[in-house]
Amino acid sequence: MLTTAQALDAILASVRPAPTERVALSDAVARVLRQRVIAERDQPPFDRVTMDGIAIEYDRFAIGERQFPIQAMQAAGDEALALEPGHAIEIMTGASLPTGADCIVPVERVSLVDQLATIEGGYRAESGQFIHRRASDHARGTPLLPAGTRIGALDVAVIASCGLAEVDVATRARIAVISTGNELVAAGEPIADHQVRMSNGPAVVAMLAEHGQARARHVHINDDKTALRTELGQLLAANDVLVLSGGVSMGKADYVPEVLQSLGVEVVFHGISQRPGKPMWFGLGPDGQSVFALPGNPVSTLVCCRHYVIPALRKIAGMAAMTPQFSVLAQPVTFAPSLTCFLPVRLVSNAAGQVLSLPVHTNTSGDFAALAGTDGYVELALGRRDFPSGSAVPLHRWRT
Amino acid sequence: MLTTAQALDAILASVRPAPTERVALSDAVARVLRQRVIAERDQPPFDRVTMDGIAIEYDRFAIGERQFPIQAMQAAGDEALALEPGHAIEIMTGASLPTGADCIVPVERVSLVDQLATIEGGYRAESGQFIHRRASDHARGTPLLPAGTRIGALDVAVIASCGLAEVDVATRARIAVISTGNELVAAGEPIADHQVRMSNGPAVVAMLAEHGQARARHVHINDDKTALRTELGQLLAANDVLVLSGGVSMGKADYVPEVLQSLGVEVVFHGISQRPGKPMWFGLGPDGQSVFALPGNPVSTLVCCRHYVIPALRKIAGMAAMTPQFSVLAQPVTFAPSLTCFLPVRLVSNAAGQVLSLPVHTNTSGDFAALAGTDGYVELALGRRDFPSGSAVPLHRWRT
Repeated sequence: MLTTAQALDAILASVRPAPTERVALSDAVARVLRQRVIAERDQPPFDRVTMDGIAIEYDRFAIGERQFPIQAMQAAGDEALALEPGHAIEIMTGASLPTGADCIVPVERVSLVDQLATIEGGYRAESGQFIHRRASDHARGTPLLPAGTRIGALDVAVIASCGLAEVDVATRARIAVISTGNELVAAGEPIADHQVRMSNGPAVVAMLAEHGQARARHVHINDDKTALRTELGQLLAANDVLVLSGGVSMGKADYVPEVLQSLGVEVVFHGISQRPGKPMWFGLGPDGQSVFALPGNPVSTLVCCRHYVIPALRKIAGMAAMTPQFSVLAQPVTFAPSLTCFLPVRLVSNAAGQVLSLPVHTNTSGDFAALAGTDGYVELALGRRDFPSGSAVPLHRWRT
Repeated sequence: MLTTAQALDAILASVRPAPTERVALSDAVARVLRQRVIAERDQPPFDRVTMDGIAIEYDRFAIGERQFPIQAMQAAGDEALALEPGHAIEIMTGASLPTGADCIVPVERVSLVDQLATIEGGYRAESGQFIHRRASDHARGTPLLPAGTRIGALDVAVIASCGLAEVDVATRARIAVISTGNELVAAGEPIADHQVRMSNGPAVVAMLAEHGQARARHVHINDDKTALRTELGQLLAANDVLVLSGGVSMGKADYVPEVLQSLGVEVVFHGISQRPGKPMWFGLGPDGQSVFALPGNPVSTLVCCRHYVIPALRKIAGMAAMTPQFSVLAQPVTFAPSLTCFLPVRLVSNAAGQVLSLPVHTNTSGDFAALAGTDGYVELALGRRDFPSGSAVPLHRWRT
């Protein structure tokens, strides 16, 4: 049986990158860049005034001149004027520095009467003050964002500032989320005592949406070999990624691996030395489709989705691997089985800047109501039994 | 001038809660619950089998019986059968426990020949094993999610398990994001040297989207009093929240506060003792609209959006205040002005479970390209100058 690291490596080694498409910047939030973004112009593109006030020659201030006739007013967006000797130009934050000027005196330090500006007594100015010099942030052509960036609000600012109304991004993978099981009844439908609400599929779709995968759609198939073969065959043809929940343990009604193999999906592994989620199955379709069959218990499904499916989708989109995070156990944990333990936790940021993990003990791997309010799960290493309070352990947040 | 805490308090005290609407669960991700979610049924709703195997009476195993004729097969989703004395029922994970049975022997421990199950020699069973008892997670009627929950993937699992195909959520605030300034040119349009790319508005819209506010739309208005009055009047009538970028410093072309007041927007404050973002303005419209006028420098705009607008939108939706987070400075920082300093940082999770902040010094508050790749900003308290390496300081992540 593979370790958790071996399983993740096997998945990541097998996924194919998604093609590239061009989208409007306004549709690009949470998408993954497939191009570098380079500076369109020097930044700032001109000597930029950073204070409302008057623009003057510093040399005249230095020799004691304090009164300057106002030559003109120049706002942000106006072309730079040429300052006449001995004059001042009223100037706004964001404006181009007038040629000939090299000092801005803030409006609060100036009184203006009859188009004559008088600088207050005792005010000390410096040459070049309140001027953000052209190219001082970066020069034209400087790389600002690398390919592989997941586009957030700050990146939108940079892309817009580079003049790009459209960007190349990874196409979203076509994903089908498939719930299997006769016992499942959708929310809103009447339910008998022995039946179970269908919750894993909607939760997986929601988790994918939280990670920018809005294209996932949900399908329910009964535990019937013929129906499974027909519907899985169609879904395989129409998608890049299949995420199945349920149907991968060893019971008679768990036809999923057998049906997948009959459809040309080659098993990469079946079983990972972890709890929850030990029976997880992963295979590759005939056209390179990634096929995840997650164990059907709700806690297992969600942990396996976050731990294996999300990193695969990031790699498909061209993102780098996630940076490791660590957390400190706020309570001792004992875990005897020779398996990696994924333990759901609530996080608390303490005043020392540590991220503390409060373990949330799910009653069983079906007890997902206990998961609500958790922030992620910690990874307790295989081969160790006792994890004292204060141990630092790898942390995986539900939302990344 | 208000402190940062006073400004936030003033904003939060003034916002009005959004109305409630009912949406399909599939559309509810990132929305805020306006109802409690209570358990529809006991969980599990029946004595649930947690292992593929055979269901037997434990008492017969205890007295040494190891062979049991197979009476029937029962899968997940089947109604519970009644176990005949001395028999076994083949049983699947997720099935209802047959009446009369109280022990599941895993399939790996059983050989099945001609409808006779033989349990392997030396196997030790316990009464009640591999049975998840009805209501052991929670009883019907137990509150599982409170109102005010921002619906994530785990919550979708809980809501679906409670049978709710629709839920009451806060309506999304109607938000207009307004860029002001003649110098602004949209991405994709030709640009002259003295002009500036319009980037703040799109970045604010993106930040709002990252916080679940998909309804924000962006408008550009030139620095013209008449145009401002007309367009702001229309936007005020059609929205709950206005977020303006630019036009709130003290220069002649900064008409925004004056125009807003002429439209019946009452100023709540103008100016916060912080850098960046000192000129921030906040007012209340005639119908209680929240009107934020953020300083136009890009770093200021984004910090003020995250620090003031996002918490206001959370409160409008009915969420609780964010839990404080802390981070440890990885480098010493000196900040002399008598202002709160918001310093953008990259975060590193170290192997001791600490969140380290690497300050990113923006060249000016216009140097937003340096912001790309930062994770948030730390808050350096007013009235202190030196923040040594290792200090723990409040942390605000861009994405929450």
